[in-house]
Amino acid sequence: MMKFRNFKMVDYVVYGRGCFNQLDEIIAPKRKEGAPMIFIIDHFFENNETFKARLPLKGNDKLLIADVTYEPKTSQVDQIADSLKKEFGTVSGIIGIGGGSVMDLAAAVALMMTNPGKAQDYQGWDLVKVPGVYKVGVPTISGTGAEVSRTCVLSGPERKLGMNSDFTPFDQIILDPELIKGVPTNQRFYTGMDCYIHCIESLEGTYLNAFSKSYGDKALELCRKVFLEKKEWDDESDEDLMMASYAGGMSIAYSQVGVAHAVSYGLAHVLGVKHGIGNCIVFNHLEEFYPEGVKEFHQMVKQANIDIPQNITKGLTEEQFDTMINVSLNMAPLWENALGKEWKTIMTKERLRKLYERL
Amino acid sequence: MMKFRNFKMVDYVVYGRGCFNQLDEIIAPKRKEGAPMIFIIDHFFENNETFKARLPLKGNDKLLIADVTYEPKTSQVDQIADSLKKEFGTVSGIIGIGGGSVMDLAAAVALMMTNPGKAQDYQGWDLVKVPGVYKVGVPTISGTGAEVSRTCVLSGPERKLGMNSDFTPFDQIILDPELIKGVPTNQRFYTGMDCYIHCIESLEGTYLNAFSKSYGDKALELCRKVFLEKKEWDDESDEDLMMASYAGGMSIAYSQVGVAHAVSYGLAHVLGVKHGIGNCIVFNHLEEFYPEGVKEFHQMVKQANIDIPQNITKGLTEEQFDTMINVSLNMAPLWENALGKEWKTIMTKERLRKLYERL
Repeated sequence: MMKFRNFKMVDYVVYGRGCFNQLDEIIAPKRKEGAPMIFIIDHFFENNETFKARLPLKGNDKLLIADVTYEPKTSQVDQIADSLKKEFGTVSGIIGIGGGSVMDLAAAVALMMTNPGKAQDYQGWDLVKVPGVYKVGVPTISGTGAEVSRTCVLSGPERKLGMNSDFTPFDQIILDPELIKGVPTNQRFYTGMDCYIHCIESLEGTYLNAFSKSYGDKALELCRKVFLEKKEWDDESDEDLMMASYAGGMSIAYSQVGVAHAVSYGLAHVLGVKHGIGNCIVFNHLEEFYPEGVKEFHQMVKQANIDIPQNITKGLTEEQFDTMINVSLNMAPLWENALGKEWKTIMTKERLRKLYERL
Repeated sequence: MMKFRNFKMVDYVVYGRGCFNQLDEIIAPKRKEGAPMIFIIDHFFENNETFKARLPLKGNDKLLIADVTYEPKTSQVDQIADSLKKEFGTVSGIIGIGGGSVMDLAAAVALMMTNPGKAQDYQGWDLVKVPGVYKVGVPTISGTGAEVSRTCVLSGPERKLGMNSDFTPFDQIILDPELIKGVPTNQRFYTGMDCYIHCIESLEGTYLNAFSKSYGDKALELCRKVFLEKKEWDDESDEDLMMASYAGGMSIAYSQVGVAHAVSYGLAHVLGVKHGIGNCIVFNHLEEFYPEGVKEFHQMVKQANIDIPQNITKGLTEEQFDTMINVSLNMAPLWENALGKEWKTIMTKERLRKLYERL
């Protein structure tokens, strides 16, 4: 195993206001005779005919609406890949247009078009053995960094874990700040805070190096600009948040998230809380680990006039608490990054239980 | 033609102190039976046996010492590629270890192993039609951003211009800050200033967007940290300068350099002045175009205790001045980025002549 990760980058990036209009031209050379391009879009756009009319569908291309009320499941990936194989044999490419869930779903489907077996077989590190079909990621909401990720997070029958491999990053990403203009304020905030929180976790973690620091610092600075310094949201805010998401994602190359993500995974497992809001619910109470970051987060919450849900673990059973605690403590690299090699002596089951009770 | 450039990224990046030790392991899967890996190293290392012993040469691998006293020529590229083809038929890959000139030379040789004709045929934009052989860039001096460039600058019989194409970026770059530790202070300064100057030019240019701005701001901040804020050079400075070079190179995706580079190209053509020092000689006198940047540059020069050469155009003939002016005014995109669409009315031959006389 190499000491320093050899980081696979996304192959092509196009950034610019209106660059989504270049999608047709960009994918044209990747079209193979008879094999369609598959567009997977967020159900948010289901009834948006204007947006759907902008998709460059041709011939036997297919549009799929992805319901991402819940985060993507391995079974959903298998179902889509199997039905595409049945209908077309092979496809020219998969284009995921939406938030982190849709992009992750699209990346996973692209991999499962060529890798045998089921998606759950590939949850882990470097289990994917052959490249998937051509895949494109188009964020329509910014913050998760899924557009430059080496993983695609999936809920499987046994675990919530990504297909983390060198074949996972997109062949192409299209970063058009115009596409994130219409995101509802709450959603924009929660997803933006995902970026803010993972930057704090990575910058204060023990795994950091200069590469990740430079990206993390930049993402943090842009988050501060849009969520604190500027009092009104404008087009420039969309541009900056889109870059924050990209830089935040890149910063994960040589770092790791920390306490908020580890605790939030437990919440997601037991209560189905979505990633962005889950991180906010947890980070809201993490003064003891990230005092400066949490203070600044509270200012951002106040300025955006958002109510972070409280008391969501009230009335949970002992068994549910135990499950949350076990899921969370299983995220060893996150805890080690946050608290150092001796993390087990610091974050005991009792302490974590008290933390969950406060949420 | 697309409105926004679809930017080809380097495929793999590894960053970390000591990661050069992973070179053997990284290139192993790319070795093809009987086809050697070719290591092209900077003549700076010619007598450094310790360094040469660290190169993972195997079987019929070959080590070439590149004399980069002058910047690489198309004829030099052809000569190396032709002799490799004659000796081996094909090679597994080209590994360029050195400064911007060596990395550019290695990238060009890799392309000429597979593209027919001569290197000069490919000086321009998107003329390269097929991928080259596998290529790796390893900077041992930081600032130019050549490690992430879409071009490789070459002097040809007719022009100094790169092979600018989607096939030009490296398949792999290895960013090990330990490798730039021994760079002589002068050289480190001039090459670092190449980064500083192209950031100022790009950030104050008319082509800028949020993608390039975020990288340019970061590179500038790191240059300020190492050349102004810190009073002593240490290991962290090497790490920061290496990231500044990378970020500065990335910022060129959606921007362009400006007056300093345009004027410096003329100097290089007539006097053979190297890129880094040439930019410094010119930027030193550009208060009228970049007042803040030049002021800060003067502080950096003072702090590093460097003498920037003066009066280098004294005694040049009319013909030499004319050539410099013509070469410089030929760099239309640089002037347009710096001065806007009406640049020709602003930068007249007379004004440029006066500027050259001051250098």
